[in-house]
Amino acid sequence: MAQRKQALKAIAGGQALARRVPAAAPQEQADHFITREGLTFAGSHLIIDLWEAEGLDDIDRIDRAMRDAVDAAGATLLHIHLHTFTPSGGISGVAVLAESHISVHTWPERGYAAFDVFMCGNAEPRKALAVLESAFAPGRVVVGIHKRGVL
Amino acid sequence: MAQRKQALKAIAGGQALARRVPAAAPQEQADHFITREGLTFAGSHLIIDLWEAEGLDDIDRIDRAMRDAVDAAGATLLHIHLHTFTPSGGISGVAVLAESHISVHTWPERGYAAFDVFMCGNAEPRKALAVLESAFAPGRVVVGIHKRGVL
Repeated sequence: MAQRKQALKAIAGGQALARRVPAAAPQEQADHFITREGLTFAGSHLIIDLWEAEGLDDIDRIDRAMRDAVDAAGATLLHIHLHTFTPSGGISGVAVLAESHISVHTWPERGYAAFDVFMCGNAEPRKALAVLESAFAPGRVVVGIHKRGVL
Repeated sequence: MAQRKQALKAIAGGQALARRVPAAAPQEQADHFITREGLTFAGSHLIIDLWEAEGLDDIDRIDRAMRDAVDAAGATLLHIHLHTFTPSGGISGVAVLAESHISVHTWPERGYAAFDVFMCGNAEPRKALAVLESAFAPGRVVVGIHKRGVL
């Protein structure tokens, strides 16, 4: 997967990925598994419920927020697909990333949006979360976190 | 931040916070929220780690398994996208459903596949799980379950 990321970086910007191996910081393995505080795992998966949120039937706002979340996390977008349901105006969709994915499902009539953000390697899913909170101004946020692929 | 902390506590004790109303069987609302054993929520989200699994670089096998999983769960496929990484052969992708989604990310070199299956309404995500287990013959399976959108 390091080769995976290097290849993608090469496509995106023609720049080789600098190998950073600071002694005290998270370390990334050849296949993007990371070691943090002694635990080696594939990545972090945030399960995010937004309540009393706005803009949940606005596909352009959701598209923009997901792209901004990917950028903020330092991740690479490969594919995005959003689907609007009628007549509710609810939206379902996903961004497939080089580092995993972000999904969204909204219930505008409930003010409820279900996101998940799964990112492996050195991408920073919490920065994506901050973008989503900013974009939809929820009154209440519930977040669960899974470490995926713990060795 | 205080609000956030409160919300994080709520996820651990979600059952206790939920409004309980007598209900004999699962009931589906107009917006697909369901009521089961007195708990009203949007759907179930399974976080599935397969280890010592086979066929994780075989895009046709993964495509077939995801479609079969959707069918077994009684769900409706809207869109499927799978991406192969070179040279690792790892595959990432997602099936967007009328009832939410299934995602997959594989590390063939680790024998590891990270799936998640989120289904709302009366779809049955555990039946999707059974199909995935059958398709990739994992030596070990780790499953976490979130009830999403608990009212």
